[in-house]
Amino acid sequence: MSAPEDASFLQEAIELAVENVESGLGGPFAALVVEDESVLAEGTNRVTTVQDPTAHAEITAIRAACKERGDFELNGCTLYSTCEPCPMCLGAIYWAGLDRVVYAATHTDATEAGFDDEHIYQEIDKAPDERRIPMEQRLKEEAHRPFEAWRNYDDRVEY
Amino acid sequence: MSAPEDASFLQEAIELAVENVESGLGGPFAALVVEDESVLAEGTNRVTTVQDPTAHAEITAIRAACKERGDFELNGCTLYSTCEPCPMCLGAIYWAGLDRVVYAATHTDATEAGFDDEHIYQEIDKAPDERRIPMEQRLKEEAHRPFEAWRNYDDRVEY
Repeated sequence: MSAPEDASFLQEAIELAVENVESGLGGPFAALVVEDESVLAEGTNRVTTVQDPTAHAEITAIRAACKERGDFELNGCTLYSTCEPCPMCLGAIYWAGLDRVVYAATHTDATEAGFDDEHIYQEIDKAPDERRIPMEQRLKEEAHRPFEAWRNYDDRVEY
Repeated sequence: MSAPEDASFLQEAIELAVENVESGLGGPFAALVVEDESVLAEGTNRVTTVQDPTAHAEITAIRAACKERGDFELNGCTLYSTCEPCPMCLGAIYWAGLDRVVYAATHTDATEAGFDDEHIYQEIDKAPDERRIPMEQRLKEEAHRPFEAWRNYDDRVEY
């Protein structure tokens, strides 16, 4: 994709984010999934209005694009986001198998605007049981049963 | 929560994950959100069946629990997951403000079973433009417009 096309799609996402705020639909974030130089789907932040903490713009756009495409992967697509993805959205971008991401605001800009995800990046580097939200391991032996069921299930769809 | 109660809820999640595989609904993962010692919501992996790469068990359970509670936060709740959360789900756990996570399989167990998220943890530590899915920054000035709209919007709901 050329630089002017990148700027044009990103500008479209920025307009969408401004509209999202001004119409009371959620936070100041929007994203577009683009395939073959046309918009496959768009998404805006809807955390407070649909009461879903995972409804970040990127996740909303990825879900909508997969529905549109009838696929659980988005290879060949570019995500345009008004802001650098948080760790949750970064994970979603890898699971979706997008080709590329273009973003406008950095996570430092987001922190200055009151949307701080730096603490999550810091938590990732800690041992699970030392995190602010402690994560404890139990039932080590039983833990393997779902994976055994998966290996034994002949009709499994790998992903 | 006592150790026997933790084991009991985690055991319930493991059964749910086995059932999810055997009924062809998705991957070998399940999660429960528990509030006041009772199950608020459950979730299983549905990536391939609902065609949504974000439909991991933890995300599905968090979304269902928020819907049940009528809230975009889950403070006071514990998440029981059959597997250590991937970076996407870890982010969602922080955004949801859960109190605690108890999991069974480790991410090493998951990798051995063919579900590798280690590469995502490695990608997080790289500079955005050096990642396997390159992330490029554009429109530095325009980037601030959604945040300005947010500051100027009197009815904003902070999250």
